[in-house]
Amino acid sequence: MKTEKINFSDKFKRLPPGDYGTGIIARMNDYDIKIVKFKGDFVWHSHSGTDEAFIVIEGVMVMNFRDRKVEVRTGEMIVVPKGVEHKPSSSEGYKALLIEPEGVPNTGDVKSDMTLAAVEWI
Amino acid sequence: MKTEKINFSDKFKRLPPGDYGTGIIARMNDYDIKIVKFKGDFVWHSHSGTDEAFIVIEGVMVMNFRDRKVEVRTGEMIVVPKGVEHKPSSSEGYKALLIEPEGVPNTGDVKSDMTLAAVEWI
Repeated sequence: MKTEKINFSDKFKRLPPGDYGTGIIARMNDYDIKIVKFKGDFVWHSHSGTDEAFIVIEGVMVMNFRDRKVEVRTGEMIVVPKGVEHKPSSSEGYKALLIEPEGVPNTGDVKSDMTLAAVEWI
Repeated sequence: MKTEKINFSDKFKRLPPGDYGTGIIARMNDYDIKIVKFKGDFVWHSHSGTDEAFIVIEGVMVMNFRDRKVEVRTGEMIVVPKGVEHKPSSSEGYKALLIEPEGVPNTGDVKSDMTLAAVEWI
């Protein structure tokens, strides 16, 4: 039985320095809850098998879709539906929670130099 | 395609007055993301079929377990494992996100005067 609370600030401190970092902080059934920090322009991609929920903790995440973009701020969230191309970007940087089934690749169905072999527990 | 952002503060304003209120704000695959506000002492219960993730947005949620209690504050979360008896309580009140599969009863396997027939979209 794992019933410890998880503090987001403590977890973000454990990410290495840099504009992009992510790690798993909790599991709920077969879903991972991850932290993500990002600054810059991610890669266009989609996840053919799953929706993805982003909850912004700090900063502004611009979620680009092919036909428009949505600015998601602290205290806001967005669900990216499965199969929908998207590209997170941020000039100032953001911190967010990301919720999706375990084992979902960070760049979805696309391979790029941002593709991670795996996301680790942090 | 539903790619609108969701603002937690706006959603909480739509809950009726009172110490307890909840509503669905998003769906991710077959999971609901709900807002919950609560002040007082909930009912002991467990969910035999699923874990439950609570993310505290405001205030302090005391998650009571049979052997101990955990104070979960703004910027923190906890996963209650399936089958584990728990009772949320709060003297000052809290606001939280609750993530679990759609259709999970609010009082789990227990019937009480706090049991809701259903949780509605808000």
